[in-house]
Amino acid sequence: MSLIGVQSFACGRWVDPGAGAVVIADAATGAPVARVGNAALDTGAMRDYARMTGGPALRQMTFHDRARMLKSLALHLDQHRDALYELSYHTGATLADSRIDIDGGIATVFVIASKGRREMPDDHVYLDGPPEALSRGGSFMGQHVATPLRGVALHINAFNFPVWGMLEKLAPALLAGMPVIVKPASTTSYVTEACVRLMIQSDILPSGAVQLIAGGVGDLMSRLDCQDVVSFTGSAATARHLRSADQLIGASVRFIAEQDSLNASVLGPDAGPGTPEFDLFIREVHRELTVKAGQKCTAIRRIIVPDAHVGPVIAALEAEIAKTRIGAPKLATTGMGALVSSAQKQDVLDGLALLEKEAPRVIGDPARFELDGADPARGAFLPPMVLCCDDPDAARQVHETELFGPVSTVMGYRDTKHAIDLVNRGGGSLVASLITGDPDMAKEVVMGAGAYHGRIYINNRDSMAEATGHGAPLPHMIHGGPGRAGGGEELGGIRGVMHYMQRTAIQGSPDMLSGVGRRWVPGASEITKADHPFTRRFDQLEIGETLHTATREVTSKDIETFAAFTGDRFYAHMDDAAARRNPFFPGRVAHGYLLLSFAAGLFVQPDEGPVLANTGLANLRFLKPVEPGSQLRVRLAVMQKTPRNDEYGEVRWHVTIRDQVDEAVAEYELLTMNAR
Amino acid sequence: MSLIGVQSFACGRWVDPGAGAVVIADAATGAPVARVGNAALDTGAMRDYARMTGGPALRQMTFHDRARMLKSLALHLDQHRDALYELSYHTGATLADSRIDIDGGIATVFVIASKGRREMPDDHVYLDGPPEALSRGGSFMGQHVATPLRGVALHINAFNFPVWGMLEKLAPALLAGMPVIVKPASTTSYVTEACVRLMIQSDILPSGAVQLIAGGVGDLMSRLDCQDVVSFTGSAATARHLRSADQLIGASVRFIAEQDSLNASVLGPDAGPGTPEFDLFIREVHRELTVKAGQKCTAIRRIIVPDAHVGPVIAALEAEIAKTRIGAPKLATTGMGALVSSAQKQDVLDGLALLEKEAPRVIGDPARFELDGADPARGAFLPPMVLCCDDPDAARQVHETELFGPVSTVMGYRDTKHAIDLVNRGGGSLVASLITGDPDMAKEVVMGAGAYHGRIYINNRDSMAEATGHGAPLPHMIHGGPGRAGGGEELGGIRGVMHYMQRTAIQGSPDMLSGVGRRWVPGASEITKADHPFTRRFDQLEIGETLHTATREVTSKDIETFAAFTGDRFYAHMDDAAARRNPFFPGRVAHGYLLLSFAAGLFVQPDEGPVLANTGLANLRFLKPVEPGSQLRVRLAVMQKTPRNDEYGEVRWHVTIRDQVDEAVAEYELLTMNAR
Repeated sequence: MSLIGVQSFACGRWVDPGAGAVVIADAATGAPVARVGNAALDTGAMRDYARMTGGPALRQMTFHDRARMLKSLALHLDQHRDALYELSYHTGATLADSRIDIDGGIATVFVIASKGRREMPDDHVYLDGPPEALSRGGSFMGQHVATPLRGVALHINAFNFPVWGMLEKLAPALLAGMPVIVKPASTTSYVTEACVRLMIQSDILPSGAVQLIAGGVGDLMSRLDCQDVVSFTGSAATARHLRSADQLIGASVRFIAEQDSLNASVLGPDAGPGTPEFDLFIREVHRELTVKAGQKCTAIRRIIVPDAHVGPVIAALEAEIAKTRIGAPKLATTGMGALVSSAQKQDVLDGLALLEKEAPRVIGDPARFELDGADPARGAFLPPMVLCCDDPDAARQVHETELFGPVSTVMGYRDTKHAIDLVNRGGGSLVASLITGDPDMAKEVVMGAGAYHGRIYINNRDSMAEATGHGAPLPHMIHGGPGRAGGGEELGGIRGVMHYMQRTAIQGSPDMLSGVGRRWVPGASEITKADHPFTRRFDQLEIGETLHTATREVTSKDIETFAAFTGDRFYAHMDDAAARRNPFFPGRVAHGYLLLSFAAGLFVQPDEGPVLANTGLANLRFLKPVEPGSQLRVRLAVMQKTPRNDEYGEVRWHVTIRDQVDEAVAEYELLTMNAR
Repeated sequence: MSLIGVQSFACGRWVDPGAGAVVIADAATGAPVARVGNAALDTGAMRDYARMTGGPALRQMTFHDRARMLKSLALHLDQHRDALYELSYHTGATLADSRIDIDGGIATVFVIASKGRREMPDDHVYLDGPPEALSRGGSFMGQHVATPLRGVALHINAFNFPVWGMLEKLAPALLAGMPVIVKPASTTSYVTEACVRLMIQSDILPSGAVQLIAGGVGDLMSRLDCQDVVSFTGSAATARHLRSADQLIGASVRFIAEQDSLNASVLGPDAGPGTPEFDLFIREVHRELTVKAGQKCTAIRRIIVPDAHVGPVIAALEAEIAKTRIGAPKLATTGMGALVSSAQKQDVLDGLALLEKEAPRVIGDPARFELDGADPARGAFLPPMVLCCDDPDAARQVHETELFGPVSTVMGYRDTKHAIDLVNRGGGSLVASLITGDPDMAKEVVMGAGAYHGRIYINNRDSMAEATGHGAPLPHMIHGGPGRAGGGEELGGIRGVMHYMQRTAIQGSPDMLSGVGRRWVPGASEITKADHPFTRRFDQLEIGETLHTATREVTSKDIETFAAFTGDRFYAHMDDAAARRNPFFPGRVAHGYLLLSFAAGLFVQPDEGPVLANTGLANLRFLKPVEPGSQLRVRLAVMQKTPRNDEYGEVRWHVTIRDQVDEAVAEYELLTMNAR
């Protein structure tokens, strides 16, 4: 094939590699694949283009608009996966590896899009948490909101996942409403470039929403301020260099880092040889050792097992590894492909020399292994290797030096506390896993090691059929870790979107909060219409539209009837003396469900109309006991509207039931699905 | 009075000032008040004492234990306020100023304690958000949790609020379970020291929970790692110096900064002279100018008003300021006291010279003002001063140079967009306020300026009687701001506690998640007891204890009866043909409230017993329409337990109603109060 000229995409046009371009070799054959780099890119213009063109266009859309855009993007990429797989072979990745990268990246976009639709409003302001009562009378309240930052997100990605690594950052940023400049690692940038090209060609994104820098970022870092975000994945050394930049420190630029991590997997004492958990543990470790030839930030670097099981674990791993064929990524029989480059291979070998001083190699030999369909002198191949550390308390390198390749170290532990100490010796990791059936051990490990980990993965016979694997970050859960792992956090559903927004505490009257958040707050003005709100379609209803019902008395006979009908003869409703002995009741009181039922009887408009169904109810609180003879009436107000599709949307109604002295006896939120 | 020797409290003992001690002068008289500083403190030992003694003791307590501890602490301090007021006069603060500092600090501890009891569990692991479904079958799920960091929180506080500034950081850290080293600004450290002494003497805190450094932090910064937190309030220059520290950058140490901020207040176009809003605006600006002699990080530095109102605003401010007497802090007539020191006064004068080039002074003269009961040559007094900037678009210093004293600049704006641009010229601020009655303007300002602000305070005639003031950070709402304001965030209820905890994504089977979080997750094992759970007391009930009820049929006659009884004759329940036309229903279906009522009839044990009341219901979802003839049965499981006091606690029950084909028709969480 001819050399790929990896283009940048700057200010709406594609730019060829130029001064400073370097040649990238195929990982398995050593043949030149691509040229990448252009020292002449105008990063200031790119930043301005993102700020002036991309940002405003994205911010004009609602969260739902952007979620729909992401879904379209994922659908489009999904149709073009094959071209990306084909390119990915050059990086040393097998098809299975590429599926993690490409399919995994697309799946991440789908999940983020779906969460955006379900958990964010069809509006420009995100409400973070419930309103806060800041005054007795309720005329002054608080509400946290989040709005998109007005700068650009600079995503500096690692080489190992050229597609997933881009998409897992891109989706939350775009959902937030921030434009992005993607800067992939040069070694695999041709795969990222192909994916960006698919996105740009699809015409789904507004201009300026995504730009691409193939090569170095130049002086872009010095142009950022508090409205920008840098999200970095890569080595600790590079992270340190970037976060020391004067401009970043001086302007409090947000910096999210995900760097080295010596993740551990712990075998529980209950999970000895012969148990399903033992076999599961071996499978998990083997997978993390071989997938992407161990070039995964979440891979298991430390295998922490009860002292008694060190021998059996090594034996079982050896048997499993023996089944794995190393070879050309494209061969169907290949279980493990090449590392990304000879330089990367050499890095691993250098680190191996360090670690072997503390932990002799017990499985695998970098100088002698079988290789299918490739030339070991040209491709960056290594076999899976396992070291064994006899004195993990004294050892240091095995806990602190990350070998970004197919290498892991077995070490024994005495008891759970010792296992936790060893796990934490990583100094902060992305993930630790624990294979056990014992929930008490799980709790102890979470309490002892949680502070050092962004994720703790627990697996056993109950969950193994559906578990997603130690090494797989999921869009629902946060990905990141403290200390050595960089102190960053990504993903985790809407949590990951918040990194691209500013949280702001809003204080004001109920009317002001309702106006800002498009969610009616008790105390805000009521809108009265001639028609019953149940007769008005979703799109006609206004936030704050309110119905006040007639009054209905609750009699002793009603309580008797309800008890007989439902079978709920709870003493507080039936036995006046017993109810009086209860600290909360003045005597016999009406059933809570009787109140809800009567309230519905009062506010429902029965005719066929736009209200399609009552889908649920939330935050119900019974505030005051209702004695026989009470007169009830209801206020029903449109609190929030969330479109679901072109046909209907969800209406959240605020409901207050009051008694004859105008005191609230119950408050709740009612959910209905309404035709548009 | 004799000179106060400000002691440090290190490793459980009080340490006198020593080498490096400096003398602090009374702000109003210039007389020496205190000696502070000890260069020989062993900061390594202090860190170890916090980690080895304070941390484990705090972590052994639950969140509720620590919340109760904070409440006791607040009650204790509340009884000893007078001694603190007395000392505070030396700092230049009036009694009104001290109430903000001391009463405000104590109130903050009360609120954080109360939020801890209400919003956190009586356990060691905090659950962050709901469980996440990660598999189709439900055998593998996710849950975010938070656990306390295992290091020490270093709190570096500013001089202006020696008590509030300490307590607003201390309460969240202790609630999280982290020990604290407090490092107050030297100038007012004698007030902080007195407050710490009260806390230590009360014996309410475990050993090692709080230590105090009076003087410099020495080499403590270089001893921190990813389990520690630095929370800093002070100047941008100091923040920049601290956050550049090699160890902080290299070890990803959490650094929270609150530094300079040129907060703005905007007068809405609707709020012209003669409106209640105009008068309110003048009162807010005047208060922020004079309280603490303008030495407040949240003070209004920029007064942004419609062009037409610049003159009237200045005139009204002049009249208001003329009523304010400047003088000795202790005089009852004094409306504004002294700045903290002559050095601080000189800083303000230096800055004033800069600003006056862009904005001539129109109110107040530092060289000529009336002073009551004090010597202007000895005390650090200044009058309130207002500048007026004619060309705020061209000006720079008025937006970027914070004068930490009684100085503010008026500038005019053309339209809302211009006002937003000017507000954002602060480059990131703690707070902006907006005085308007127009919710549309409020929304526009939030969308346009939210990204630059940690708080937006909106006030008008509706809220002014209860509003807490532009400058008052509240424990419920976040305090902090992007960019120039430091990029940090504090308070905001439990959000502020999270800074001292690590968030961890837990993945595993329902049993593992239930074990880790002490919250039963659907799919987890059920515990069956011989007795009905309603007959068992709060403390006897176990998480996961489950009741399966008998079955009950829902007939057409039931639906008719219920409709007639409640008056709810909604078409989906009454009119088979209309229900069929509805996209969600197969035909006529039972009322949702009928299902809830029948469910209660099935699961309730009616006899007088430990269940005291049904207090509410949450997260109800109707999952499947229920046609006449359906057979219903209910599963009731103890989901979560939260003690409320010694007599009773709240039980959250998970309820599932299933039909004859074992499909869930409704799911919800029921809340009851149960005797212990």
